[in-house]
Amino acid sequence: MPSSSANATLSPDVLGVHLQELRQAPPLVHNLTNFVAMNSMANILLALGASPAMVHAPEEVSEFAALADAVTINIGTLSAGWVESMLMAAHSARQHGKPWVFDPVGVGATRYRRDVAAQLLALKPTVIRGNASEIMTLAHQADSGRGVDTTAGTDEALQAAIALASATSAVVAVTGEIDLVTDGQRLARICGGHELMPRVTTLGCSLTGVIAAFISSGRDTFESTIAALACYAEAGRQAGLAANGPGSFSSAFLDALYNLNESTFSHLAPVEINHVC
Amino acid sequence: MPSSSANATLSPDVLGVHLQELRQAPPLVHNLTNFVAMNSMANILLALGASPAMVHAPEEVSEFAALADAVTINIGTLSAGWVESMLMAAHSARQHGKPWVFDPVGVGATRYRRDVAAQLLALKPTVIRGNASEIMTLAHQADSGRGVDTTAGTDEALQAAIALASATSAVVAVTGEIDLVTDGQRLARICGGHELMPRVTTLGCSLTGVIAAFISSGRDTFESTIAALACYAEAGRQAGLAANGPGSFSSAFLDALYNLNESTFSHLAPVEINHVC
Amino acid sequence: MPSSSANATLSPDVLGVHLQELRQAPPLVHNLTNFVAMNSMANILLALGASPAMVHAPEEVSEFAALADAVTINIGTLSAGWVESMLMAAHSARQHGKPWVFDPVGVGATRYRRDVAAQLLALKPTVIRGNASEIMTLAHQADSGRGVDTTAGTDEALQAAIALASATSAVVAVTGEIDLVTDGQRLARICGGHELMPRVTTLGCSLTGVIAAFISSGRDTFESTIAALACYAEAGRQAGLAANGPGSFSSAFLDALYNLNESTFSHLAPVEINHVC
Repeated sequence: MPSSSANATLSPDVLGVHLQELRQAPPLVHNLTNFVAMNSMANILLALGASPAMVHAPEEVSEFAALADAVTINIGTLSAGWVESMLMAAHSARQHGKPWVFDPVGVGATRYRRDVAAQLLALKPTVIRGNASEIMTLAHQADSGRGVDTTAGTDEALQAAIALASATSAVVAVTGEIDLVTDGQRLARICGGHELMPRVTTLGCSLTGVIAAFISSGRDTFESTIAALACYAEAGRQAGLAANGPGSFSSAFLDALYNLNESTFSHLAPVEINHVC
Repeated sequence: MPSSSANATLSPDVLGVHLQELRQAPPLVHNLTNFVAMNSMANILLALGASPAMVHAPEEVSEFAALADAVTINIGTLSAGWVESMLMAAHSARQHGKPWVFDPVGVGATRYRRDVAAQLLALKPTVIRGNASEIMTLAHQADSGRGVDTTAGTDEALQAAIALASATSAVVAVTGEIDLVTDGQRLARICGGHELMPRVTTLGCSLTGVIAAFISSGRDTFESTIAALACYAEAGRQAGLAANGPGSFSSAFLDALYNLNESTFSHLAPVEINHVC
Repeated sequence: MPSSSANATLSPDVLGVHLQELRQAPPLVHNLTNFVAMNSMANILLALGASPAMVHAPEEVSEFAALADAVTINIGTLSAGWVESMLMAAHSARQHGKPWVFDPVGVGATRYRRDVAAQLLALKPTVIRGNASEIMTLAHQADSGRGVDTTAGTDEALQAAIALASATSAVVAVTGEIDLVTDGQRLARICGGHELMPRVTTLGCSLTGVIAAFISSGRDTFESTIAALACYAEAGRQAGLAANGPGSFSSAFLDALYNLNESTFSHLAPVEINHVC
């Protein structure tokens, strides 16, 4: 288990600046995501203040990725034609200096997913976001996780996340009850959210888009990823206050994302950033 | 018209036991469903307490069906590639002893749908769930139903349902204002729900997933199907109390499913089970 | 800039008649739309009182378009297989005298979209609905619009809309903060709606379906299109009164569409119809 020493913080003010900048210049986020997530993800990005687009035809996917400010690739409902487009999009993003975020949904479930994930990892995602099972599978390329929901806790994935970040040079975000972010050297934990979040489909997939929107700013990717997760967790916390179940939570979550502003974060403690030793 | 004689009941307590067992060991439900339904179905299964997954690539669909606790196949937005995967998933489910539920959306509308439905029926679904028009088409392989919404009442489909159950050895559920369930020998009617339900898209498709979640318990399939329909009808009834239209209904329905518990059913009359004579 | 002279109005009473007729004989609207929009569009059409269906397989798309009362084609998430089906559906609609509505999502973004749009335009849509950027691109076949959200105001698209209507014999609807409708000779502006509408995904795509539902009546297409936009704008205005953000707006919008009735329009001023000089 790696030990760590606290040596910096990210203040609530800085989180607010990240959000304000996103809204002043709404990023175009190009998503190759799964059929379940598309509608929710578009609504979440619009509520936040970004501009989502879903484009996947081989005839146009490279051209569109070059136009976009960031790209996301999610293998939730993959198939051969889509994989071809995912590889083209990731390649175009790299070629045009656009960040891209990889979401390895259910990677442990089948051999096909593990093979496709390996091909995508080779195209150097800027950020990898998954649940604990998914990050552990990617790090170990071992079989874990039966479906798309995690069977492991976030902290179990800590070492795997650090190893994966070191091996790929990506920022790795493990999201769950508590979120972890690491770039292999630095490590942060983000708390918040609400217990209803795993009962609403594709909130994780949509968070991948929110990370893409934040990292398109060109600021430090590790910090931008923290800002994305902190916004999401805070909107989740607020939505949970009024919710009676997953239906009312979904609606309140979109409202909360829309109404987030710089002062939203003022009550939060600074996010501690530790060095991985 | 077959006559029937009441000879058993399913008590509200037993419905509660079915629900409790589902939540204690959340089933992984593997869905090959239509593009319209995917998001709603995932949310409904999560609200209920099950774990949904949507996987359709020929490269992995058999492997995933073998991992899952139950499979659903819905032809709402079929195409040749998906039909291939549907047949593979149904075959794998049978081979691995997993129950599968067939949802013949709009089967009366085109020749293609009737042909695909016949291929799927040959793979012996455990349960068939459709509206009255769809069940009548399957039973008669006659042209009925213009679109995806039913033009017939549930009771008109009674004889067709019994005939279809007898011919296929499947439990057949005809859902609508009143639901019918039969295994060819036994027959039950489930009341409840709300008039707004047909105004919310894919509530029928999602119910197919709920049936799959319940029948994965390995208990008597006929009884488990009744339990699924009774939960759905009760959540619908509750949601209708607060709704001002289909938008607020959808949200309240997810909340109601999430908040269902054993005591929810205590006010209900037992479900009568009749022998088909 | 074309000048115009007011010479007719469409009264609130007539809008109510259009709506009443739609509900008395719910039209079957066959949609080939994008993956993001499918669920929302189905819910919006059901809330309004129409019967939506999503069918795209080449094996059945022509047969289904012939059964339907109107067809919509939306290129938001196009791919080669779907384009083939879109062309078949548009052709079948024309052949069987069914109106069809074209929604050129993001047409300015890539060469592929412009090429596909040109092929579809050649099949003579009855109505074309887009945002200002999309209509300007179609009219000029020039590169404009970066993503799927408009970068131009509705009034900037006025000349383009008139030119496009004249060139194609279609009714052209430019929707945005204010909506414009023209058939090349007549011009109307529809106000209403709410500032949250662009923050909810696929409300534009879904409006395309609502237009299809209204024009299937066989009444004057220009007037029916105005009626569709007026209903949508009024439901949006009402939903905005209670909304705290895009989540609560979505839910309230479906409720408002469902609860629209003839008296809903009584407070509205007549829609002015001007001759294009």
